Amino acid sequence: MNAALDGDVVHLSAPGRQRFYDNRGYGHPDGDALDLAPVEAAHLLFRGDIESVDGMDFRSFLATTDCTLDFLVYKDLRDRGFYLSPARWYDDGLSADFVVYPRGDGPWDDGIEYRMRVVGERERVAASSLDQTLAVVDEESEITYLGVDDPDITGSSDTDLPSDVYGALLADRVVLWDPPADLYRQAFYGRPLDGREADGPLQCSLLEAAYLAERGAVSVDAEHAGIVERGRQVEGDRFDRRLAVYRELRERDVVPKTGFKFGSDFRTYADVESADDLGHSEFLVRVVGCDHEFAPRDLALDVRLAHGVRKTIVFALVDGSEVEWVSLSRLTP
Amino acid sequence: MNAALDGDVVHLSAPGRQRFYDNRGYGHPDGDALDLAPVEAAHLLFRGDIESVDGMDFRSFLATTDCTLDFLVYKDLRDRGFYLSPARWYDDGLSADFVVYPRGDGPWDDGIEYRMRVVGERERVAASSLDQTLAVVDEESEITYLGVDDPDITGSSDTDLPSDVYGALLADRVVLWDPPADLYRQAFYGRPLDGREADGPLQCSLLEAAYLAERGAVSVDAEHAGIVERGRQVEGDRFDRRLAVYRELRERDVVPKTGFKFGSDFRTYADVESADDLGHSEFLVRVVGCDHEFAPRDLALDVRLAHGVRKTIVFALVDGSEVEWVSLSRLTP
Repeated sequence: MNAALDGDVVHLSAPGRQRFYDNRGYGHPDGDALDLAPVEAAHLLFRGDIESVDGMDFRSFLATTDCTLDFLVYKDLRDRGFYLSPARWYDDGLSADFVVYPRGDGPWDDGIEYRMRVVGERERVAASSLDQTLAVVDEESEITYLGVDDPDITGSSDTDLPSDVYGALLADRVVLWDPPADLYRQAFYGRPLDGREADGPLQCSLLEAAYLAERGAVSVDAEHAGIVERGRQVEGDRFDRRLAVYRELRERDVVPKTGFKFGSDFRTYADVESADDLGHSEFLVRVVGCDHEFAPRDLALDVRLAHGVRKTIVFALVDGSEVEWVSLSRLTP
Repeated sequence: MNAALDGDVVHLSAPGRQRFYDNRGYGHPDGDALDLAPVEAAHLLFRGDIESVDGMDFRSFLATTDCTLDFLVYKDLRDRGFYLSPARWYDDGLSADFVVYPRGDGPWDDGIEYRMRVVGERERVAASSLDQTLAVVDEESEITYLGVDDPDITGSSDTDLPSDVYGALLADRVVLWDPPADLYRQAFYGRPLDGREADGPLQCSLLEAAYLAERGAVSVDAEHAGIVERGRQVEGDRFDRRLAVYRELRERDVVPKTGFKFGSDFRTYADVESADDLGHSEFLVRVVGCDHEFAPRDLALDVRLAHGVRKTIVFALVDGSEVEWVSLSRLTP
């Protein structure tokens, strides 16, 4: 068989199709001949299944076509027992790099296990593009697979709120001096100023206070606008984004509390019956603008930490008052 | 006793000293009278030990003196059984906020358990100022204590290097096509291109390749300068900082490998005998410029993650080719 590089396609003469497509899922048939993407040709060269492309061996082919990252992921998935195709052979308008078939299946079957995107550690990942599995290749060429999901953010922590509890704005927090006991005990707002006395004064974050003021439950001298203004003073635009997410979570009957100890914006409780008997919190939520671009390393950090504390990291992408949710988790294909 | 606010001191008339200093470690004696910092007066007001300062009760005093953050930490440490003094009563030129005495000791003793700095979640912490325990107050007024240490970064992973192994610069990595087996197996450089064949080609990160080229062990067509240039193209100044840290770690006979999966720059192995039988890696290293300012939340994230994987987070502060090391860990006073 003759293998020739033409632009970004390697043409393999007959019986290329029979040998590499029909039996092993490489390339895109062209009669009895076969078109290969460079990454597929590189893999066949690496394995010694073809000897050269236009006189180039594996080493020179890799240097010429510059498909190193793709090659590393392609090879890893083949080693794990998957057949996969460069997305160009599978025209479904998605921006994936590879379409990975279920183990045992190939391009002649219907199923798709993963739509996969290859990302170098040093590239940025746009928040809005998080809609397929990521294969992140780090600087030492190890691959981390991150699965992207649509999390179910709903809860049952709905409670009646009091009205007009007086609060004092102190620096970047609000103290409610005489709150009704249920505000903390049942609805899990704030934190007792004296940990040993849950019925005493409550410290609230600016977010909690702003939301409670919106709902008419709390009033401060500076009014709702004064709390938001203080929030913007200390956090800038981030405050508005975080308030939009806080509000959306509360409206889905989920209780958000600070995720500070986990380095995120919130940890969330779906079903709070009592602050004295909290269950496990399910999600860690990181709030970002919808135009945010992630460094893959930061994604790896969040995913790893969340996994270690048996939670799931959720990114809340904020566009004005609209919030979209995306969860990430480590995946072993 | 009469309590009067004068600037940022509360004067307590006699027998203030006897009642609150001699027995309970508050304030700074002035004959039989006592000078209190606002945070100390706030605590006495909160406890009901004094009724008012210039007619102000606890609530109005807190609103007037704006010492909320300090108060939260002061109270928490008192609740945990410590006596502590505002650093102003303890003039040793350190920039701490509080001097905390060993449990059972007080200002009349010699020991110091912690020099503590109070930080709000929204403040920045200069890398160069990491020299005392941090008490970080998050937006919901929970306190996270972070201990700062001087880590021992030394190892025994010293190996002879080969000379002039040929490498090819491919995008943002280097492949050594025919390396001596010990380069990976014993010195733990690179990663086998084919995981099942440790003696075959090795993929190296740009950092590994640049260091090996500096040592004369590897040569690429673009030479050492070409590797560094490629590094700067893809990472900017960060590459130089990371290379300085990589070099320093190798020169301390510690093996750095990527910390990507942990969201850091490196994980380190002090005593590598063989890549096939690695021990546990001890540190996660994050590289920053010496003028870096941390968001406390990022510190919390790193510390929490490192703890979860039984490692210690180390910050490498880089000033040109000079590296300073600081480790952080969570502390329960």
